[in-house]
Amino acid sequence: MLYVIGIGPGNQGAMTLEALDAIADADIIVGYKTYTHLVKHLTGDKQVIKTGMCKEIERCQAALDLAAAGNKVALISSGDAGIYGMAGLILELTTQQRLDVQIKLIPGVTSSTAAASLLGAPLMHDYCHISLSDLMTPWPVIEKRILCAAQADFVICFYNPRSNGRKDHLANAFAALRRYKPAETPVGVVRAAGRKKQEKWTTTLGDMDFEPVDMTCLVIVGNRSTYCRDGLMITPRGYQFEPAD
Amino acid sequence: MLYVIGIGPGNQGAMTLEALDAIADADIIVGYKTYTHLVKHLTGDKQVIKTGMCKEIERCQAALDLAAAGNKVALISSGDAGIYGMAGLILELTTQQRLDVQIKLIPGVTSSTAAASLLGAPLMHDYCHISLSDLMTPWPVIEKRILCAAQADFVICFYNPRSNGRKDHLANAFAALRRYKPAETPVGVVRAAGRKKQEKWTTTLGDMDFEPVDMTCLVIVGNRSTYCRDGLMITPRGYQFEPAD
Repeated sequence: MLYVIGIGPGNQGAMTLEALDAIADADIIVGYKTYTHLVKHLTGDKQVIKTGMCKEIERCQAALDLAAAGNKVALISSGDAGIYGMAGLILELTTQQRLDVQIKLIPGVTSSTAAASLLGAPLMHDYCHISLSDLMTPWPVIEKRILCAAQADFVICFYNPRSNGRKDHLANAFAALRRYKPAETPVGVVRAAGRKKQEKWTTTLGDMDFEPVDMTCLVIVGNRSTYCRDGLMITPRGYQFEPAD
Repeated sequence: MLYVIGIGPGNQGAMTLEALDAIADADIIVGYKTYTHLVKHLTGDKQVIKTGMCKEIERCQAALDLAAAGNKVALISSGDAGIYGMAGLILELTTQQRLDVQIKLIPGVTSSTAAASLLGAPLMHDYCHISLSDLMTPWPVIEKRILCAAQADFVICFYNPRSNGRKDHLANAFAALRRYKPAETPVGVVRAAGRKKQEKWTTTLGDMDFEPVDMTCLVIVGNRSTYCRDGLMITPRGYQFEPAD
């Protein structure tokens, strides 16, 4: 049995019961070391196999091989395993190698949803996720998506917004957005949602300071109706109600 | 205190610990009757205020007024309250009326994420949410978003895909997609994810039968790389690995 588990943003409160139960049921825990660390209070004496970044194929193959050998294995992703996580690679490998492994995918609270709940309610209307990592997606594809998303007036969630190796991607994305979206468009940033170093702030497309943004941040750019009030970022769904006196 | 709670798709296993704790802590539960029914085993003797559809403003105002009067209130949304749920309206009313109510937004597993975990891993690359309800959004805005999403090659999740009053919206959406996406594009449908009447199936953009789709369904349309194999809908993230023998 292989459980592929989204543990949510990082705090135990945002984990689902299914995720907790699956970790309790597993004999072996596999995951990127940052994520296995987030659940270490739950794993007790179980065997924990930690891997570094960019070892996704090895990590998934190890989890599959252990499960195929009869172990109950829990593969951990932060957020939801089906959103830029390990679920896809697990299923690609399983179907391609015709492995006889029972797989249970356990959904979790993804980063955009967790970040939104900290900022207010920015995702109340149609929105999209775009990863700014060009490790596996050519930048022109990413840029086209940014331009289409701006024309569609989607609220936009940027995953993997800025790393040491890709310092300019977020600035380039914002420059693309400015072709269609005004400088006053609200922007919310959440760092390390649900974890010890959690921070959040709001700004605008025109005033954005890119320097504090790193890979632990999630950046949400509003649509044409999004506003900030009392420190909250709100995208109206469109309900009509009486204005206050 | 007002807790605004996303309870996930419907099964208790997909609820977060925070959501369970907040319901336990609340004195009064408020929600659309389908959702209060989903948590009735958790609400015991608490006062439960159920409202019908299209009573969103009344429901939110009632929850706010009860909280302002000193009660601990839990307002229930299915999925995540910040995604087509009640979080936005609560914050709009609170900031506009300058209410002195402590509000805690508790994120949940939204419908697209839950549906994806049942279908396989269709959301492994950039994707968007589009609601096909035109109650509060003019159809031309929705259609423009569909066309932009197709051009961006987003995986597309359709919320509120088809109701008695909007029988043709999904067919119209698919006709728009066909301007940019081939007939073979995989489509996954999940009905009532996590609930008793859960069903799922995959088809293609060209072969889609709209008749079985209703408002309890979530429809996911793949991108140009999405494929179906062994009954699973998979969108590759882009990892390169050795082909099997």
